[in-house]
Amino acid sequence: MASISRSSLRLRSVMRVPGARTISTTPHLRAAAKPFFADEPTAPKLSTAIPGPKNKAAAAELDKVFDVRSINMLTDYSKSVGNYIADLDGNVLLDVYAQIASIPVGYNNPHLKQVAQSPEMITSLINRPALGNFPSADWAEILKTGILKVAPKGLDQVFTAMAGSDANETAYKAAFMYYRQRERGGPEKEFSDAELESTMQNQSPGSPQLSILSFKSAFHGRLFGSLSTTRSKPIHKLDIPAFDWPQATFPSLKYPLEEHAQENAQEEQRCLQEVERLIKEYHNPVAAVVVEPIQSEGGDNHASPAFFRGLREITKRNNVIFIVDEVQTGVGATGKFWAHDHWNLESPPDIVTFSKKAQTAGYYYGNPALRPNKPYRQFNTWMGDPSRALIFRGIIEEIERLGLVEHTAQTGAYLYSGLERLAQKYPEHFQNLRGKGQGTFIAWDTPKRDEFVAKAKGAGVNIGGSGQSAVRLRPMLVFQQHHADILLESIEKIIKQL
Amino acid sequence: MASISRSSLRLRSVMRVPGARTISTTPHLRAAAKPFFADEPTAPKLSTAIPGPKNKAAAAELDKVFDVRSINMLTDYSKSVGNYIADLDGNVLLDVYAQIASIPVGYNNPHLKQVAQSPEMITSLINRPALGNFPSADWAEILKTGILKVAPKGLDQVFTAMAGSDANETAYKAAFMYYRQRERGGPEKEFSDAELESTMQNQSPGSPQLSILSFKSAFHGRLFGSLSTTRSKPIHKLDIPAFDWPQATFPSLKYPLEEHAQENAQEEQRCLQEVERLIKEYHNPVAAVVVEPIQSEGGDNHASPAFFRGLREITKRNNVIFIVDEVQTGVGATGKFWAHDHWNLESPPDIVTFSKKAQTAGYYYGNPALRPNKPYRQFNTWMGDPSRALIFRGIIEEIERLGLVEHTAQTGAYLYSGLERLAQKYPEHFQNLRGKGQGTFIAWDTPKRDEFVAKAKGAGVNIGGSGQSAVRLRPMLVFQQHHADILLESIEKIIKQL
Repeated sequence: MASISRSSLRLRSVMRVPGARTISTTPHLRAAAKPFFADEPTAPKLSTAIPGPKNKAAAAELDKVFDVRSINMLTDYSKSVGNYIADLDGNVLLDVYAQIASIPVGYNNPHLKQVAQSPEMITSLINRPALGNFPSADWAEILKTGILKVAPKGLDQVFTAMAGSDANETAYKAAFMYYRQRERGGPEKEFSDAELESTMQNQSPGSPQLSILSFKSAFHGRLFGSLSTTRSKPIHKLDIPAFDWPQATFPSLKYPLEEHAQENAQEEQRCLQEVERLIKEYHNPVAAVVVEPIQSEGGDNHASPAFFRGLREITKRNNVIFIVDEVQTGVGATGKFWAHDHWNLESPPDIVTFSKKAQTAGYYYGNPALRPNKPYRQFNTWMGDPSRALIFRGIIEEIERLGLVEHTAQTGAYLYSGLERLAQKYPEHFQNLRGKGQGTFIAWDTPKRDEFVAKAKGAGVNIGGSGQSAVRLRPMLVFQQHHADILLESIEKIIKQL
Repeated sequence: MASISRSSLRLRSVMRVPGARTISTTPHLRAAAKPFFADEPTAPKLSTAIPGPKNKAAAAELDKVFDVRSINMLTDYSKSVGNYIADLDGNVLLDVYAQIASIPVGYNNPHLKQVAQSPEMITSLINRPALGNFPSADWAEILKTGILKVAPKGLDQVFTAMAGSDANETAYKAAFMYYRQRERGGPEKEFSDAELESTMQNQSPGSPQLSILSFKSAFHGRLFGSLSTTRSKPIHKLDIPAFDWPQATFPSLKYPLEEHAQENAQEEQRCLQEVERLIKEYHNPVAAVVVEPIQSEGGDNHASPAFFRGLREITKRNNVIFIVDEVQTGVGATGKFWAHDHWNLESPPDIVTFSKKAQTAGYYYGNPALRPNKPYRQFNTWMGDPSRALIFRGIIEEIERLGLVEHTAQTGAYLYSGLERLAQKYPEHFQNLRGKGQGTFIAWDTPKRDEFVAKAKGAGVNIGGSGQSAVRLRPMLVFQQHHADILLESIEKIIKQL
């Protein structure tokens, strides 16, 4: 614990001298790896209470035209560097929330800056294509050297989208079309007159009463189809019409996992049986099961690889499409490029959706039968944004250059060890510490969670919660051991204030 | 008609000399206004049959990873300028389809190029914010000098989105929350336990069985909520579950309008009565009516300002939100900035949605009660993309600098007159010519529509259809009289081949 208390001193000294940047001389930092960003601050800097006067004034101004009640902090992105986010009042925080888990390689990453200035970027910004009709000459190349370069094993095709919600919804649409095509007897079968007529009335058989099975506490987005599979919190769903789709129980594991192996295995078996029962019995037939590798908005709920292998088997056995929603878990944060890489599946998911750290969105698939049988069935005007696809390619290049997936696995292990020590020291503030071996995708429950998150800024860190009682860590992939040290000492500082 | 045949010769001569660019010396061009783009081609250029060998090879390569069955042409954007789109084989076409009506100020617009290289653009590309939580310091300024500068009269607030579908769906969500809040007795009323519990089951009262009323032949998007209001073609809807929402008949006007004034007025009254009847009687109560000023995918179906004023009155009288979907009609193409500016409404729509030519998306509103009563009810991670908001600001600057709305009204009148002449000459190919006084937002029906559109490229123009039998013109706002001349001569050339 020595290093934590030493650097706690360092942090406090920084905080007494607003405006000053301090180069740390603590031994654990001298020994640490070289920072990825030459110009990154070496510690948080607190200049005012947060929100400070400039932030308050700017929020009041913005409120006139844009709902600001969800604002966390107005941000000066020009002064944000690497893992550090700056506000308008001179405060600079270590950011382990990272735009709701969506910044992968740091603020003002120099390589992304080059990408942003490239001729391809400029042309894609000013000549936005309708990708389904008029893709650019180099669209295949952009996909192959970017989005598809990191395609999950077994999946070699992509439908591009704008964000997590529409990535999931277009995946659901692909599953519904696939399901009905199978019922109809194959891709060459024509639609019946009854289908053609009834769909214009939003009635079956043309608009069939099929369903997507999701899990309790799941989050898959907030548009009408995705929201019907989202079961995180009432506030996400209230007053919005929803489809009558089934939900299964997600395993509720007991921690530490080592001490509850048998109970947890039984819990997962129970949940799997419920999934299969719902698939067989639900009144609106199930076309697909969608699941997050870690339920990320719903409270950082984990399940074992065996559970997910079980899901893959059940969906296969029942001819149901298996959709893995990697919107929050994908792109390296769990110490694998895709979180489902941890599962050792015998056959890949049918569909994997992505967004957030990819900075663009879409779904991967491999089975050619998941391409609808006719053109224009899966289509919209823009079908994504090549500008954001270029940014993802730049992100992939950074990840490869710096080895950020393996790096995150290692930093995550280091961070997890530090949190285990804190959990031993402050057991009342650390329940169900989880995410071991999952990179920096770490969370724990704490009875005063909202207070904890609110006090974090005063301790120099920007941190988020998930579900009812979890603190969730979502550092960037460029988060290093010296950042972990600062985070650990900040957490201890917050705990002492609770 | 003299000028048409003169420049037909010019076009043909260009087409006999692949690779050559020809500066026209025909009198009507010498007299025309100065081109907006100094380096824009003066005529289409055909080098190969379309698609040519390079385009075919590139499409085959792309097909391995991306569904290409809807591809119109692979595009060389670096060689596309102003109103002209270039393919990979050296063909350069006058583009009056413009990425499905979404390019406003020309390919490689020099001002947008400056915007794309600006420091604000670079920071927004590489530091993508979660706009609801961490907006940039200048977000209010970007909104006020951009998106909100052109806000429809009476609407001074915006919720930003990614594309037309989610712009409409978030508007629907706002309408549903507003409707239930009124039922509940006001914004300060808390949700009941029954609501909190039932919404997690996707059941009412928490997930109420409310509806959005849309019109037959309407197009509002292809995600689950928007698709439930889309009634354009079966292929858009088949196999996808839909909400049980009502559809009213959209007026079917007879042309020429002057000769059928009384019939058309009666037809519109009939449709309005149906709307009011559905609002009063439909089993799933109607929270909002959504309508396009011109049904743009469903066949370029128009209605009179009186019809829309009637809709505004009916929705007001019945406490139903009136949503105007300006995704395709907005941003100048009808000769007004917003198509609903043509209606002279006494009170503005409750919500206006936008996308396409805005290059970003969202919905405008004015009534503060349309902000949900609690934060995080209308929310998602990115809530749009500031990069695209900056592009829209640049577009607005170009529109103002060049007076492109008034310009489009004038060019549209010129083009419409030319089409009237062609319609007189070839009545069998021009039915229901429409869009008079609606800028360049012009269409007509023709019995061989698909063949017409297919042959257009061979005549040097890229042109699209809508609905079952309409040719729709969707030139950019930088479309000028000399482009209209080329388009008119190309249309005549196509007709002669049918």
